[in-house]
Amino acid sequence: MSLPYELTASQAAHAMRERRLTSEQLVRSCLDRIAAQEPLVQAWAAIDAERAMATARAFDAQPARGPLHGVPIGVKDVIATGDLPTQYNSPIYRGHQPPRDASVVARARRAGLVVIGKTATQEFATRGRASPTRNPWSPGHTPGGSSSGSAAAVAALMVPLAISTQTAGSIIRPASYCGVVGFKPTFDAIDTAGMKPIVPSFDTLGVHARSMGDAALALQALSDWTGMEEFSHGPPASLRISVCRAPFWAHAETATRNVLDLVARRLGGAGAQLRDTILPQAFNELGAAHDTISDYEARQSLAYEWDHCRAGLSPGLRAKLARGAMIAGPAYRRACRIVDECRAAGEELFHDCDCLLTPSAPGLAPPFSDTELGSSVFSKLWTTLGMPSVNVPVPAAGPLPIGVQIVARPGCDTLALQVAGHVGRIVHAP
Amino acid sequence: MSLPYELTASQAAHAMRERRLTSEQLVRSCLDRIAAQEPLVQAWAAIDAERAMATARAFDAQPARGPLHGVPIGVKDVIATGDLPTQYNSPIYRGHQPPRDASVVARARRAGLVVIGKTATQEFATRGRASPTRNPWSPGHTPGGSSSGSAAAVAALMVPLAISTQTAGSIIRPASYCGVVGFKPTFDAIDTAGMKPIVPSFDTLGVHARSMGDAALALQALSDWTGMEEFSHGPPASLRISVCRAPFWAHAETATRNVLDLVARRLGGAGAQLRDTILPQAFNELGAAHDTISDYEARQSLAYEWDHCRAGLSPGLRAKLARGAMIAGPAYRRACRIVDECRAAGEELFHDCDCLLTPSAPGLAPPFSDTELGSSVFSKLWTTLGMPSVNVPVPAAGPLPIGVQIVARPGCDTLALQVAGHVGRIVHAP
Repeated sequence: MSLPYELTASQAAHAMRERRLTSEQLVRSCLDRIAAQEPLVQAWAAIDAERAMATARAFDAQPARGPLHGVPIGVKDVIATGDLPTQYNSPIYRGHQPPRDASVVARARRAGLVVIGKTATQEFATRGRASPTRNPWSPGHTPGGSSSGSAAAVAALMVPLAISTQTAGSIIRPASYCGVVGFKPTFDAIDTAGMKPIVPSFDTLGVHARSMGDAALALQALSDWTGMEEFSHGPPASLRISVCRAPFWAHAETATRNVLDLVARRLGGAGAQLRDTILPQAFNELGAAHDTISDYEARQSLAYEWDHCRAGLSPGLRAKLARGAMIAGPAYRRACRIVDECRAAGEELFHDCDCLLTPSAPGLAPPFSDTELGSSVFSKLWTTLGMPSVNVPVPAAGPLPIGVQIVARPGCDTLALQVAGHVGRIVHAP
Repeated sequence: MSLPYELTASQAAHAMRERRLTSEQLVRSCLDRIAAQEPLVQAWAAIDAERAMATARAFDAQPARGPLHGVPIGVKDVIATGDLPTQYNSPIYRGHQPPRDASVVARARRAGLVVIGKTATQEFATRGRASPTRNPWSPGHTPGGSSSGSAAAVAALMVPLAISTQTAGSIIRPASYCGVVGFKPTFDAIDTAGMKPIVPSFDTLGVHARSMGDAALALQALSDWTGMEEFSHGPPASLRISVCRAPFWAHAETATRNVLDLVARRLGGAGAQLRDTILPQAFNELGAAHDTISDYEARQSLAYEWDHCRAGLSPGLRAKLARGAMIAGPAYRRACRIVDECRAAGEELFHDCDCLLTPSAPGLAPPFSDTELGSSVFSKLWTTLGMPSVNVPVPAAGPLPIGVQIVARPGCDTLALQVAGHVGRIVHAP
């Protein structure tokens, strides 16, 4: 018999519906787990155990608000919570307490989720000041970032679900490094009101979870996505998958190459039609366009902090914002046009396939350091294009986890989750 | 000799550069004007006179930060200010004090503008709880909304510039009713970080001013627009203007019809080539698409307030959010697609003209009431399409002002301001 903290969100919710478990017991179990693991993992920027327990007891006394009623959740600390500090891993915002919840947090509570605390983040979800979080599989290694705490907390069985954000690779990469499901929905699927805007053209809300079904239930709770039933039917019978190695295959380490090949073989063995993706020529400029937009918009979003609290910004973030200041309006707009053109050209990628299969990260998690988070090169492209993407954990040979990434066309979140779920099943089959 | 508060921003800045005026004298003059006029006009949600005076004195002692150094400005109360309460005209946020400035406010201070206070707004810049503001030209009439305080404060000579927002017609309509320049730049020209998001697809920052040059200088200060020199050269020699009466001409009252015809005649007399705009068929659905997106996104943006503070929302806003709750995801996405298609089709409008000339509002300001703000029907279309638009005040026969609207293709803010400036000159010529 599993301990409550070991259950996925769906399993826990099922047990609660059958009255074999209460939210109070589940939250207590997760808090105990956190108490035991947190000194090592350091996944949390803030916890309010008493409030979480009180909420759980209150929810136990209420009719279910939804299929995740009573399930605890962590919230990345770049998202406003009216009852927990919101500090962005920035000394500028030490102790900052917003008056209200962000839209996504209000949605979570509306669905009966119990907000346990705020998960640690890189400074403002950028590559600035590092989160102290360690990889639960190996404390000498990074969990990846910027959603470090969300991925690590879910991997360490501290909480079955966490709300995260991705502007380049901040959900998918840490999911791969920590061996959990990472789901970045279509751009704008989850409303960002109350999230600290950094690069509004790309900032996307998503989740870390321990099963594909949990990720789907979370999307249902946090957005107006209505594909739950279709998701449960699994992927199309005649699945067509295109394997995308370019343009960054040179960055892929052996572990990544091997796992991608393994998954492609298994998919083929399970009857999928496989082909190789040729990226349109136009995509060559996309990485640079992302960086231009990212630096430029971050400089706008953090105008106050730059002007009035510059000493409170890390050197890395100051360098990014200084780069942003060098970008003129026309260069920014040119980059936006490139992105628009590639979004249109991106449709072409799916003319003969349902989804893309591509690496989640260059390799295994690198050793922990104050600056090394691993590269977002394998996620940035899809974030820029607004495409839903999912990290599927794959059983790994060594102690560190790894995953592969499934990408679908914008709006096809259901298909992305169906295919990712299918991949998860076939790689775990004996 | 004008009193300092009567000067436009450019005139005041010029006098300060020539050492004939200090920022302290100018701010003092504006504060005196506010003290005299505010009991009647009620344009302000918050004023901090002492802080404004201290800032003015500090700026007087500094080298100029830009061409508007030392000029006072008002900020619509849906935009965060770190040193003034930000209350959205909502009892839910009574006394709310953000920790930091919004991006646009940081930009204003960076440019040397002196933030005098927060201008009154409709509840969350929607059609909810009315601002108490009266039309300075006739206290029995509305100044329009939702940027009521910004337009009225500039019209009442309380402050030469104010930062405003438009999601449907919240800059252009009050500018027409109050007889001031209203400028809504291209969507996204001014960064919205720190503005309370309501309908992120359409929320646009802009300004109210008393001259076209002031509006241009404000855009230069608040964004990365670099068209100042080109603006100063005036419009193209062979100006082509298309008069757009459809599809709402039936809503236009006599005053609006007359002023549009007058301006068209004057433009023709000054050598412009005139034609009539035929709106693409696709535009028929655009108004409904705007309303769908507006209700849907507002429901997301105000999820917390809806769930936890519903009694603090006005009945009008509650009705809007209840409508939003009835809109399913697919209907919302269909509306977004219609907007995207119309944005592409909108290019066509400019294939044989530089700018559109169209009404700013259905007529003169209606009588003041708790609910009547006038219709945004003549602005909503252009906001939805992300096009820069400018209200040009036109000398009116009666006590209430009126204006016409100049609209350009997205990104052509310089052209919009050039043509609007030209219209202003020819309608004021003897």
